[in-house]
Amino acid sequence: MPERAKGLIIDLDGTVFRGDSFIPGAADAIRRAAASGRRIVYLSNRGNMDRDAVRKKLSDGGIAADREDILLSSSVAATFLSRYYRRIRVWTLGEEGLREELRLAGVPLADKPEEADWLVISLHERVTYEELNDAFKAARSGARILATNADRSFPRQDGAAIDVAGMIGAITSTTGRPVDIVVGKPGWLMAEAALGRLQLEPDECLVIGDSLESDIALGRMFGMKTALVLTGSTSASKAEASRHKPDYIWPSIAELGRYLD
Amino acid sequence: MPERAKGLIIDLDGTVFRGDSFIPGAADAIRRAAASGRRIVYLSNRGNMDRDAVRKKLSDGGIAADREDILLSSSVAATFLSRYYRRIRVWTLGEEGLREELRLAGVPLADKPEEADWLVISLHERVTYEELNDAFKAARSGARILATNADRSFPRQDGAAIDVAGMIGAITSTTGRPVDIVVGKPGWLMAEAALGRLQLEPDECLVIGDSLESDIALGRMFGMKTALVLTGSTSASKAEASRHKPDYIWPSIAELGRYLD
Repeated sequence: MPERAKGLIIDLDGTVFRGDSFIPGAADAIRRAAASGRRIVYLSNRGNMDRDAVRKKLSDGGIAADREDILLSSSVAATFLSRYYRRIRVWTLGEEGLREELRLAGVPLADKPEEADWLVISLHERVTYEELNDAFKAARSGARILATNADRSFPRQDGAAIDVAGMIGAITSTTGRPVDIVVGKPGWLMAEAALGRLQLEPDECLVIGDSLESDIALGRMFGMKTALVLTGSTSASKAEASRHKPDYIWPSIAELGRYLD
Repeated sequence: MPERAKGLIIDLDGTVFRGDSFIPGAADAIRRAAASGRRIVYLSNRGNMDRDAVRKKLSDGGIAADREDILLSSSVAATFLSRYYRRIRVWTLGEEGLREELRLAGVPLADKPEEADWLVISLHERVTYEELNDAFKAARSGARILATNADRSFPRQDGAAIDVAGMIGAITSTTGRPVDIVVGKPGWLMAEAALGRLQLEPDECLVIGDSLESDIALGRMFGMKTALVLTGSTSASKAEASRHKPDYIWPSIAELGRYLD
């Protein structure tokens, strides 16, 4: 039996919860993992929430986490922009959670779309035509495009729902401008953020997630162990057919308890 | 001097009006053309309005038109679907004007997106995330995709605004499904509708519009005369550089008066 991972990198949507419902057994399994001394980070392509909102949601589900243990594509994008781009102004096509993370990282927002150096595109579940049009103006005026992630759909309570790729497609297909960088899993910025927080080597970590293209692909490319859960966007038959082969396939994250034994 | 056209095919947005403002001299020029015995149709890629709404708008600007003289990508799309597809149900990503034209043509709307045979995508200036998501569901469930047009932007009072290509990009890039047919100019369905109503040959017609890719391209491909107006999406320098060379370049449709003399 291989040595058990010292660090857990856990996806959120479709893994810990799905919409407003927590996956049965998730909180128990995570609490047990924490009690066993495992370090845990939550790594999510959600770019429309800020970390405090996620922390509160986890807490409501019985899972205690520090804000710094929560790594979202919104917060990782904000960190990236603040680290490398000192004199930019940013326009967002996204929700308040994204702007909150940009503010926390000290990234200035532009007053007008035409003045933005970067357009940051994220999931926006309350997007309006005028917001799409402002993003169109920003890209058309020369703003570079950062996408918090490029997922086509995410698992919602009522089924797969249209994700950031839809917002990206609206802007790129009308402006002819490319996306300059995608932050989310399986990108290196997310892996770097997780490993930096865990202070572990990749082969000491287990990635747990429901997406072959995001979670499992990231783990495999970086040399982490991987566990696919079937509570989100992936079925067992799809997992069998994929080139991203996980080390484990679990019915749900509740299986983590058995893994730790 | 070449013989003057017997029929006029006149674009609306950027040619007759721009947002809520009418182009100065447009109504006079059109009234004079009608008084001289020219037949006139209005040919617009607007898929979010129905013909009665356009007729009222024209009337408010001093231009009298029959409903049958107004050819919109919404009404032409509805006619196309009702003529060739007898047993379909349709889901719309668009505005009430589009659904009104589908109803007038006897095309049944689906109750749920998953049950639609066709998804009709049009301009939607009040689009919401849930509407994008319903369209995503329809395409993901196998609905074929008809776009009323595929313009990237249209001229609004506050500048170029994101058009149907944005809605299309959101759906195609998240579902991987192609657009099966684009109705609007420069497509043959629009030309066929205009010539059918005018009862004229192509070389007896003059197309007047502000878009090289829609209006001038349609006129040239079908063998009509073409006049580009500079009151919409095209500048004189852009017109010079384009492969779609119009026969005339006019500052505005007011120039039609001089043409008729």
